[in-house]
Amino acid sequence: MKNIETYIESEYPRFEKDFFEFLRIPSISTDPAYKEEVKAAAQWVADLLTRIGLKPELVATQRHPLVYAETPKVPDAPTVMIYGHFDVQPPDPLDQWKTPPFEPTVRGDNVFARGATDDKGQFLTHVFAVEALLKSGEPLPFQIKMIFEGEEEDGSESIEAFVSENTGKLACDCLIVSDSTMFGPGKPAITYGLRGIAAFELFLTGPNHDLHSGIFGGSVYNPAIALSKMLSQLIDEKGRVQIPGFYDKVVPISEREGQQFADLPFDEKEFFEGLGLVTGFGEEGYTTLERRWARPTFDINGLTSGYQGDGSKTVLPSTASAKITFRLVPNQTPDDVYKNLEAFLQKICPPGIKMRLQFQHGSGGLLVPLDSPYVDAAEKALQETFACPPVFVRDGGSIPIIAFMSEKLKADVLLLGWGYDDDNLHAPNEKFSLTSFRHGIHASVRLFRQIAGMKKP
Amino acid sequence: MKNIETYIESEYPRFEKDFFEFLRIPSISTDPAYKEEVKAAAQWVADLLTRIGLKPELVATQRHPLVYAETPKVPDAPTVMIYGHFDVQPPDPLDQWKTPPFEPTVRGDNVFARGATDDKGQFLTHVFAVEALLKSGEPLPFQIKMIFEGEEEDGSESIEAFVSENTGKLACDCLIVSDSTMFGPGKPAITYGLRGIAAFELFLTGPNHDLHSGIFGGSVYNPAIALSKMLSQLIDEKGRVQIPGFYDKVVPISEREGQQFADLPFDEKEFFEGLGLVTGFGEEGYTTLERRWARPTFDINGLTSGYQGDGSKTVLPSTASAKITFRLVPNQTPDDVYKNLEAFLQKICPPGIKMRLQFQHGSGGLLVPLDSPYVDAAEKALQETFACPPVFVRDGGSIPIIAFMSEKLKADVLLLGWGYDDDNLHAPNEKFSLTSFRHGIHASVRLFRQIAGMKKP
Repeated sequence: MKNIETYIESEYPRFEKDFFEFLRIPSISTDPAYKEEVKAAAQWVADLLTRIGLKPELVATQRHPLVYAETPKVPDAPTVMIYGHFDVQPPDPLDQWKTPPFEPTVRGDNVFARGATDDKGQFLTHVFAVEALLKSGEPLPFQIKMIFEGEEEDGSESIEAFVSENTGKLACDCLIVSDSTMFGPGKPAITYGLRGIAAFELFLTGPNHDLHSGIFGGSVYNPAIALSKMLSQLIDEKGRVQIPGFYDKVVPISEREGQQFADLPFDEKEFFEGLGLVTGFGEEGYTTLERRWARPTFDINGLTSGYQGDGSKTVLPSTASAKITFRLVPNQTPDDVYKNLEAFLQKICPPGIKMRLQFQHGSGGLLVPLDSPYVDAAEKALQETFACPPVFVRDGGSIPIIAFMSEKLKADVLLLGWGYDDDNLHAPNEKFSLTSFRHGIHASVRLFRQIAGMKKP
Repeated sequence: MKNIETYIESEYPRFEKDFFEFLRIPSISTDPAYKEEVKAAAQWVADLLTRIGLKPELVATQRHPLVYAETPKVPDAPTVMIYGHFDVQPPDPLDQWKTPPFEPTVRGDNVFARGATDDKGQFLTHVFAVEALLKSGEPLPFQIKMIFEGEEEDGSESIEAFVSENTGKLACDCLIVSDSTMFGPGKPAITYGLRGIAAFELFLTGPNHDLHSGIFGGSVYNPAIALSKMLSQLIDEKGRVQIPGFYDKVVPISEREGQQFADLPFDEKEFFEGLGLVTGFGEEGYTTLERRWARPTFDINGLTSGYQGDGSKTVLPSTASAKITFRLVPNQTPDDVYKNLEAFLQKICPPGIKMRLQFQHGSGGLLVPLDSPYVDAAEKALQETFACPPVFVRDGGSIPIIAFMSEKLKADVLLLGWGYDDDNLHAPNEKFSLTSFRHGIHASVRLFRQIAGMKKP
């Protein structure tokens, strides 16, 4: 252990250098214009794995490539899978970035760049931990597999297909994922729940071309008004989604879990102040943590209609569209939401308006059993690294592929996030704490040490 | 008269050539990027007036220049003012144009280009009519003034200031404007009413930056949802604007006027089919023509929020905005609408959302007295040119400066439109009928002949 820690400290400047190099690749998976950059990021990961002594495969898919590697099987010992994603969200709105999104810039303890915390910096901690183990000279006490994808921000379709077709090859006992947050700086957390997601785009068409709002205004239904009316009916003033059947399968928050949430040292005032808000808003009857972690939501992610340039244009637009998402909790399914949403929208679509609802992607939520031996191992590793016992939390975000892989590979999941709540993921000025980066590498090594003593279940 | 008509027919090919050259100038007034092009259009008009024998002034203003010219005063005879505008609407959405907006293209009887009907082609008919009169060798029987502006599509602020400061110089008895439509091909109309307008942009801000919709979704008010909710409350399902006080000063449609509208040969089915619609929609209790001409409206002209690129982005946007307009009828005022709208929006603005309402531009509506001798003169000129008596109609559009000039200069207004309802003004594939262009020149000359016999009032 000692010499592994010495290795990490001596190599740390290079780990940071590699990390920053990785951040320079604009691997935006949702935008077809960045296809080559996502490929370059995959190649970068494969090259890194080769340098640490593995023989990675670059797996071509229908869309973005996957990177897969494994160490030799160890009899009677468990197999651990590390998952991460090298694709990133689009950096828009660009004008709100203090420094360019693909020019990693260190300010204080943080490196600012798109993908810093989501998920390049986080998954690299495990890769560098594996490097440290391999370079220690000791034989690996269990098998490590690693799978990294380039479509996490846009539906994870390719890895889903790859996992489905390779359940034998990918078989593992525990799936380790760092793509979430700590409870706060220095306060580790084990995340035992994730929300699912269902993403759609709604397209409305009124007249067959844009009209003069003076000559025609008042006599035809304006699709932008129709969009406002339809979207506004999806959620009421008490924050309740109004789609019939939406809450039918929702697993309620138990009294015990509600108490656990309430016991967490969460400062609501500070939380909203950090967002520049005087008040929060959400589903009536639930606390802010319950609303964020354990209740389903409706959000509009984008609105587009008519003239968006400078000045005014007196147009009655022909079309209006909205990108919308629902966060789901166990046991809601994206299919149910799609079906119920479409029926509801068709019902409330105003006269003279044609609608088309496009399903974009979806996944169910996840709840990890807390009696898993891997949860025990992680609890010890985190306590040792941060000198503080981890809290058990849920996360409002979705890692769609994790619920899927957990089920397909019958693996327990360890969600060990190194990010902070204010890391601005999916937003301008995304950052990652370099302290977290360093601690993450150490915590990963300590987790491996804990697992080293375990028998294959 | 005979030799004037011969002159028009022999010069007509050049009139068309000049017109098309004019259409090539992208004089988009609302977009600061096109400032020089608006100036070039002003210069083009000034050059044309010089060629026909006038001494035009190019008047510099705070924004876009004006062009003014006049013929010598004629004792005891009236003074007629021709008004037009050489600026155009933005051509967006560009991908819906069959041929480029600033490459005039003739298909059938029409020339397609931005500004063809609104208003370059229409006002040129009067300029060429004046040319024909001047070239006839006969002395002009009354004084003609001409004023052309470059801000009609963006508030007419500069001409408003110029008119206010030069009421003596611009004094006239009749204001002739061709910036509206005929009742149909071959069916002339005298438009005796215009709607006013009040244009605004509403900006909403929620959290101080874009947030991850998973981590934060459900706990803060999404400004795009707030925008949908607020906009949807501005108008009900019966097409009634819900702003308190909005209808207070509206001049109702008289029984006689309602009957006149009903007597017009307006084919509602054909009208909606031409727009690709199975049904219209508007204020309950009013016909389609009443809704378009004589009732106030609310329209959304543009919606902007969050991610608008390809694919999805799971963002909870920080901001959302809408461009909105109200069409007004006599005696509504933009000031009243602004005051009432802002109070209403403030009242319905949801918790945690900051709003800012920006007034963009506005003007009241217009109703022309039908007993004016100039209306008589126009009726005769149109009957003679089109071999069909004109119908008396209102127009749903706004020519804000006309109501203003009419009041300031105490002039009767003649709204003699040569456009067609399907000319796609403010929309892709704007066009103007070349038959209308030719007839417009002849009708203008005939109108001048009618006015020639009149005494100064």
